[in-house]
Amino acid sequence: MSKNRTPANTDNRTRTRLFVDYDLEYDHAVTATPEQHHYLRKVMRRIDGEMVTLFNGRHGEWLARIAYHGKARCMMIIEQRLQPQRQPPDVSLIFAPVKASAMNNIARMSTELGISRMCPVLTEYTDVRRTNTARLRSNVVEAAEQSARLNVPVVDEPVPLAKLLEVWDPSRRIILCAEIGKAVAIPEALAEIEPGGAWAVMIGPEGGFSQSELDGLAKLPFVTSVRLGPRILRSDTAVAAALVCWQNRLGDWSG
Amino acid sequence: MSKNRTPANTDNRTRTRLFVDYDLEYDHAVTATPEQHHYLRKVMRRIDGEMVTLFNGRHGEWLARIAYHGKARCMMIIEQRLQPQRQPPDVSLIFAPVKASAMNNIARMSTELGISRMCPVLTEYTDVRRTNTARLRSNVVEAAEQSARLNVPVVDEPVPLAKLLEVWDPSRRIILCAEIGKAVAIPEALAEIEPGGAWAVMIGPEGGFSQSELDGLAKLPFVTSVRLGPRILRSDTAVAAALVCWQNRLGDWSG
Repeated sequence: MSKNRTPANTDNRTRTRLFVDYDLEYDHAVTATPEQHHYLRKVMRRIDGEMVTLFNGRHGEWLARIAYHGKARCMMIIEQRLQPQRQPPDVSLIFAPVKASAMNNIARMSTELGISRMCPVLTEYTDVRRTNTARLRSNVVEAAEQSARLNVPVVDEPVPLAKLLEVWDPSRRIILCAEIGKAVAIPEALAEIEPGGAWAVMIGPEGGFSQSELDGLAKLPFVTSVRLGPRILRSDTAVAAALVCWQNRLGDWSG
Repeated sequence: MSKNRTPANTDNRTRTRLFVDYDLEYDHAVTATPEQHHYLRKVMRRIDGEMVTLFNGRHGEWLARIAYHGKARCMMIIEQRLQPQRQPPDVSLIFAPVKASAMNNIARMSTELGISRMCPVLTEYTDVRRTNTARLRSNVVEAAEQSARLNVPVVDEPVPLAKLLEVWDPSRRIILCAEIGKAVAIPEALAEIEPGGAWAVMIGPEGGFSQSELDGLAKLPFVTSVRLGPRILRSDTAVAAALVCWQNRLGDWSG
């Protein structure tokens, strides 16, 4: 887009943002990774002296000035804190791995929709047995940079459902998106819940949960089963739908 | 998925569904198109005598039995009406064309989320000038078949925003997803609205609407401007988010 070739006084919505792992402090000079250097110079066509925004999930968001040193090196001088670190509402996503294109959508959209953690879970009807968590991590970093988040969701390694539940902290309640069983329509189910606390949204594989999985989940006191409308949703749509409902009622979309 | 190779008594959620354009009546024999024939025989591996579900957007949903005639022809004998035609809540989607992968997501997800019509609209910051409406139509048919809908959304040819508004029926209210301006957070905006009537959800291009477009839209009495949370959403996520909010509050997701 032509908007990308804007001068240094571009507004914060269109400014290039980079997630970094080091501390962010006034007047520090930091070095871009080779990937970030390539992205700034070749993809975004940033010129020497232009501004970029940095965040690390701990120290808020900072403005930094690009200083290229020849072709091989790109420094960034941290000039100004734009906003302090904020703690967004805490909602994890538990999901059964699906094929790559849908999984990329899930990682990107759930990051845009504010999740704190991605927990891939292996269920009875999960067809996809290999989960590329490195790919998921790179997707969530890119989505966090582009969605103006101040942190990046944690990506867990996949675990079997039984294992996940065995070590689950019961104070983190789960909204289970079930197509069958005792599920309540999601607007009514969420209307019953007082905002606050830690949550997770759980989505099954394309084939749904098995009856025994649903029975087991329904017995857990921290699980609320919900229905996402009368039509059948693909996994990525279901993830987006459940998270949007959650943010609307219990998260940071109000007011 | 292994589930697809099920016998004829498969339940309605997993049965193969086909959208057709002819009338559906008891005991009629109809001919599959070459594409449907290929899909049934090669993709879904349906054997002679197995059941398939047909819908045409007018006569509800019917069960039909597959009868292959050699390799070249596939008939379907209509045996039983599964459900009458229903009229879902009426919500259109007005959206600025984006690149192909995001547009495919928009067509599929918005169909799963129950839209009645897709209206591509050309705005000031719309980068994509060519819209493959034939591709969009094929996407919405496939999504309607797979999401258990009883009809298929209409896909309009793209028109400039000014043209769209010039002929717009003011009794169809518009929820405008705006990132700036006088937009109200979507939960609060929708809480003010009584259910009923015809609606549209409007999403801008990746670059957003221009200020003059937003000013013009805000003046229209049938437009409500909303904000979709504090993070920046890509177009396809914004479409899903706005439609989910609409279905939750004004559509068919309740009860």
